[in-house]
Parts: sequence; structure tokens; C-alpha cells
Amino acid sequence: MATQVIILNGGSSSGKSGIVRCLQAILPDPWLAFGCDSFVEAMPARMQASDQGIVFAANGQVSVGEDFRALEAAWIDGIAAMARAGARIIIDEVFLGGMESQQRWQKALGELTTLWVGVRCDAAIAVGREVARGDRARGMAAAQADLVHEGVSYDLEVDTTHTESLACAQAIAAHVRGG
Amino acid sequence: MATQVIILNGGSSSGKSGIVRCLQAILPDPWLAFGCDSFVEAMPARMQASDQGIVFAANGQVSVGEDFRALEAAWIDGIAAMARAGARIIIDEVFLGGMESQQRWQKALGELTTLWVGVRCDAAIAVGREVARGDRARGMAAAQADLVHEGVSYDLEVDTTHTESLACAQAIAAHVRGG
Amino acid sequence: MATQVIILNGGSSSGKSGIVRCLQAILPDPWLAFGCDSFVEAMPARMQASDQGIVFAANGQVSVGEDFRALEAAWIDGIAAMARAGARIIIDEVFLGGMESQQRWQKALGELTTLWVGVRCDAAIAVGREVARGDRARGMAAAQADLVHEGVSYDLEVDTTHTESLACAQAIAAHVRGG
Amino acid sequence: MATQVIILNGGSSSGKSGIVRCLQAILPDPWLAFGCDSFVEAMPARMQASDQGIVFAANGQVSVGEDFRALEAAWIDGIAAMARAGARIIIDEVFLGGMESQQRWQKALGELTTLWVGVRCDAAIAVGREVARGDRARGMAAAQADLVHEGVSYDLEVDTTHTESLACAQAIAAHVRGG
Repeated sequence: MATQVIILNGGSSSGKSGIVRCLQAILPDPWLAFGCDSFVEAMPARMQASDQGIVFAANGQVSVGEDFRALEAAWIDGIAAMARAGARIIIDEVFLGGMESQQRWQKALGELTTLWVGVRCDAAIAVGREVARGDRARGMAAAQADLVHEGVSYDLEVDTTHTESLACAQAIAAHVRGG
Repeated sequence: MATQVIILNGGSSSGKSGIVRCLQAILPDPWLAFGCDSFVEAMPARMQASDQGIVFAANGQVSVGEDFRALEAAWIDGIAAMARAGARIIIDEVFLGGMESQQRWQKALGELTTLWVGVRCDAAIAVGREVARGDRARGMAAAQADLVHEGVSYDLEVDTTHTESLACAQAIAAHVRGG
Repeated sequence: MATQVIILNGGSSSGKSGIVRCLQAILPDPWLAFGCDSFVEAMPARMQASDQGIVFAANGQVSVGEDFRALEAAWIDGIAAMARAGARIIIDEVFLGGMESQQRWQKALGELTTLWVGVRCDAAIAVGREVARGDRARGMAAAQADLVHEGVSYDLEVDTTHTESLACAQAIAAHVRGG
Repeated sequence: MATQVIILNGGSSSGKSGIVRCLQAILPDPWLAFGCDSFVEAMPARMQASDQGIVFAANGQVSVGEDFRALEAAWIDGIAAMARAGARIIIDEVFLGGMESQQRWQKALGELTTLWVGVRCDAAIAVGREVARGDRARGMAAAQADLVHEGVSYDLEVDTTHTESLACAQAIAAHVRGG
């Protein structure tokens, strides 16, 4: 079966966005890219700092409330429906709940042929890249580097510590089956 | 039935984005906002200037190719599925095909309770706001001001020519039925 | 003497940025635009929330520390030097200190031919536009609407409450003397 | 003498911006950052694609006209004046004219204590990072990788091919003399 969905999971500043853009550039078919960032942008501004939305703590920890979870569940269902309707989809995610986050996606994706990709990066390197980005709450890279991979199963893992985004994307593309 | 989807249709620089942010701020429940801008951002960069993607001509005309239409159809189905899964959704659209564009959405939304909103703005004023934005291809405001409303049916129309975004949002919110 | 510097002063969400882009579009010569936003972007990220940098309080009040003032004074001197070196300059400012802020600029600009423009907007309207922007700390529009004009002298005032950015820019352009 | 200005010169996608943000984070004093990107943003939108402004050709080549050169000369003088007025300044530049570009800066900076830094990156790697950025005209990384260093003298060179932004910034910071 042709690959229908590619899910990249990795901590903040692990290099997922760059890999996604490279995948979109090198894969011959057009793939749509969505992810936690585009989901958060779709939410009301007030939910980005409330008990029912997301809280970015000073130490880099992120917590989410009930309203967030309910909207996220519907968003995941919608993304799965896009794939069923024929769009090839790349998802860029941060599995704050580790295995539990993966299960939410697995349940929604069901029979869709999905390529699960872990994006690793040494925490010290990710922290440095967080400084170089300049636009993020500090501490997320360190807090998430290992946490997001706990109990998660992958078809493939890439490590951006010493490998460029484009090379990681090429490794992933080699696992994407055409249709 | 409670309103499940709000669709705003209007030309470039007619003021849709500001109305959407005001709606998200004043509606008591959390609504997710998507639209043609977030859809275009999800596409591969190369599709933004190709025969199969979107072409922004120097005179402000926008044309789209087959690949674009196929991805868009799947995206619309996915948005409808998000609403069926319980998320309240606001869509910010530019119906380049007028009535035909509306029919694509109507078919996908089916039984969902949808509020159709036309966002009007005098072409001369929209052209001035396009200059004030500074970040857009020039000419789209003029080219789209009337075109996008041809043959489209609305539950409600607002006009940003002399009315602020917040006041337009309040008029729309008065038509949103709670659940 | 030909106008060398245009300074627009107004509160947050009063519409200065749109007027600046319109001025750059309609004035026949090329004018460079700088302002408090570009100055803040030039500062280290850590100064944007520290005792020595800027503090954006929850109620919309903005306070700045000693390091900020020292850098700002050098920045103002540099902008004045650009104008003396022949660049036409538009400045987009928020005079948090009212007359005192104007005097800082007057001292630096010295003999340069400067057009002072006040950008007014009814506080209630500016607050609504702050909501429509969606990307700003709330409360600044209300807190600054009158404050920034206290004791400030202008060659010309425009009011964006009922007047579009382009029309305001045209009124200002009529006062710009060519060389 | 304490270092007053740091100038980083390197091609597009060589990693200058990340190094600048790291320098601002690790240097104990506050440094203001300016560069070709912030200069271009200050120009009228119409100059970004005109005979008198900048032309970004499809092959990644960049050419600039007379109006651009005149504004740039005044901008450089203004930046030098900021440094003389006491602001510590980091400049992020692309010396399209190689040695000639450096001489323009040297003339303006005069007696100011300046640290000249070359930012190198293997062209193939820079091209890959250009793909990963997704938001740039393609071809600039390849066209500029060597060109911008022709005939330029440095106090220090860093190479981002195998070295992270933060480590490059630490190497540069070791050459910055305090005051």
C-alpha cells in the first residue's frame, strides 16, 4: 500500500520543521503539512494562556487543559479524514504524552498506511538551537528531548544531532511507498 | 440546531482575518479558525508558483491548477470531518469561483449547521488597505472585490467599508446559535 | 527646506504602521521606515522581559529600564545621522513619556527639517482593532491612546477613527516638502 | 579598546542569523543587531523588485540599483553613528561586492574597534539548509557561498558546516574585548 500519512514526532528544536519542508521539496507528489504549531495558531488567542488551553511554564514545561484536548481530538479526526479523502499528509508533532499521544493518532488513523518517524536530537544540541532560534520560550528543548519518545514505536528514527535536515528527509523518503 | 461552522467569504483585503480574530475573542466557546491562507501554507513551497499549484499574476489575478484542486477537495472534506467530530469551525475563504466554490463547500458540509457570511468592502477602500498591508501582491483586492460574491447565497452580509472588524463580528455572533 | 524626517507618534493599534506603508508607496522618493518595533527586534531577546529592558504588564502598561534608555538614545542618534547622510526617514513611535519623549528626538534631530505628525484614534476603536490584530498583549491600546500625546506638539494631526490609512497618508504627504 | 562593532559576513543560509541570536544571548552586555534583512524591510515595498531597488533573479543572483546604494550608504553611516553614541552593534551582512563591500563599511566605521567575522558554510550544505528554510528564493545559497568572501579580510572565521550556531558564537565571543 502507498504511504498515506507521515508522522514526525520529536521535541521542540529537534529540527522537525526543516525536515518537513525538505520532504515536501523532494517527494515527487504534493504532500500537505500540518502540525502542533498550525493547530495552536488555529485556536483562539485567549486559549494560549489559560487553564483550558495551553500553558507554557517558565521552565519549558507545557500543559494543556480539557478544552484543548477536545479540540485536538476533533482536529486529529479531521486530519485523518483529509488523508482518507486522498491528500497525502505530513504531521509534525510533539508527543507530550509519549505512547498515549501516539495511541490517540493510531486510533484516528485506523487503516491508513502511516509511516512513524522519530526525530531525535541530543538535548544539549537542541538547547543550543533553541537559543539560536531566539523566538521560543526557553527550556522546552531540554524538557521535551527524551520525554516525547517514551513508549513510542517508530518505523524509522532520524537524528539531527550530526545529520542535516535534507539528509534526514532523504532517509525518510526512502521509506515512503508510492502509489 | 447549534451553529457548527461559520464561513466568511470575501475578497483579498476585505477584512476577513480581523473579523475572524474578533469572533474567536467574543464567542464564549472556543472556535478553530482555518482558511485559504492556512491551506496555502500547508502546501509544498513549489506549488505556490507552478502550473499545478497557484499562480499569482502581476495584475492580481489568481489561478490554480489540478493538483491544487485535488488537495483542496480533500482539505475541505477534512475540515467538515473536524466539525462532525465536535470542533466549532470558522472558515475564512476567497470564493474565486463564486457560486461554484460555495457548492464545493455545501457538498462537503452536508447536514452540518452552517452560517454563511459575505464580507463586502468597496473596491476602492480594499485597494487602499492592500497598500497599507504592504505585504501582498498588488491588484488582488481590486480583482476579487465583486468576483467572489457572484452567485453566492448568504445568511448574513457585513460591510467593512465603514464598519470596524469588532462590530462586524458582533453582528455575526448575534446569528450564531449556541448549543 | 525639503522635509528630511517624518515622525508619526500614536498609541498602540492607532494605525501608524499602515500609514507608514502608504506613505512609502505614495511618496515619489524612497523613504526608509524605522520605529519602536524595529528597535525592539534589534535588542537581545532577554531584554524584552527584564528589569533593564522592557516589561509589558498584564494591564497593557509598558515600562522600560536603564539599559533600554541607553540603547534607545544611541539608536535615536544613529537614525538622525542616517538622515544627515541623505536618507529620507519615517519614524513610527510611541511616546510613552509624552513631551519628554519628543524632546529626546528634537535634541537628536537638531537642524534636520522634521514633520511632526500625531496619529489619533478613539480609544474604544483602537481597543477593537487590538482585538482584531490578535497578536498583541491586550490593554496597550487603551493605556496609550491619550497618554502618548500629552504635551506633544505637532505640525499635523490625523485621526484614523473614521479615516483610512491611505487618506491619512495623503494628508501627511501634502505637508512633505520636496527637494 | 573594547569591541564596539561585530560584523558577520556570509552567504545566504550560511547560518548568520542563528549566530547573531546566540551572541546576543551569551554576551553579558546588551548588543543591538541589524543587518541586510532589517535594512531591506525598512525600504519601500516597491524597491524590492525594481531597477532602482533589489532584484532577486530566478537563479539566486541579487542585483541592486542606484537608489539602493544611496540609501544603503546613509544606513551604514547611521549604524556607525549608533556605535559612536555608545550602542554595541552586531551587523549581519552579505558582501555581494566582496572586498568593495567591506571597504564601504571600513570607511564608515573609521576608528571604531570592529571585529570582522567570516561565516563560512560548504555550498552543498547551505543549499540543503535553503531547502529546509522553505521561505527563500532558491539559488541564493549556491550563488553567494564563495562570492561574498572574495578579497575580504577577517579577524576570525567560523564554519557552520559541522559546527553549531552556539559554538560559533562562543568562538566569536572569545574575541570580543570588554570595556
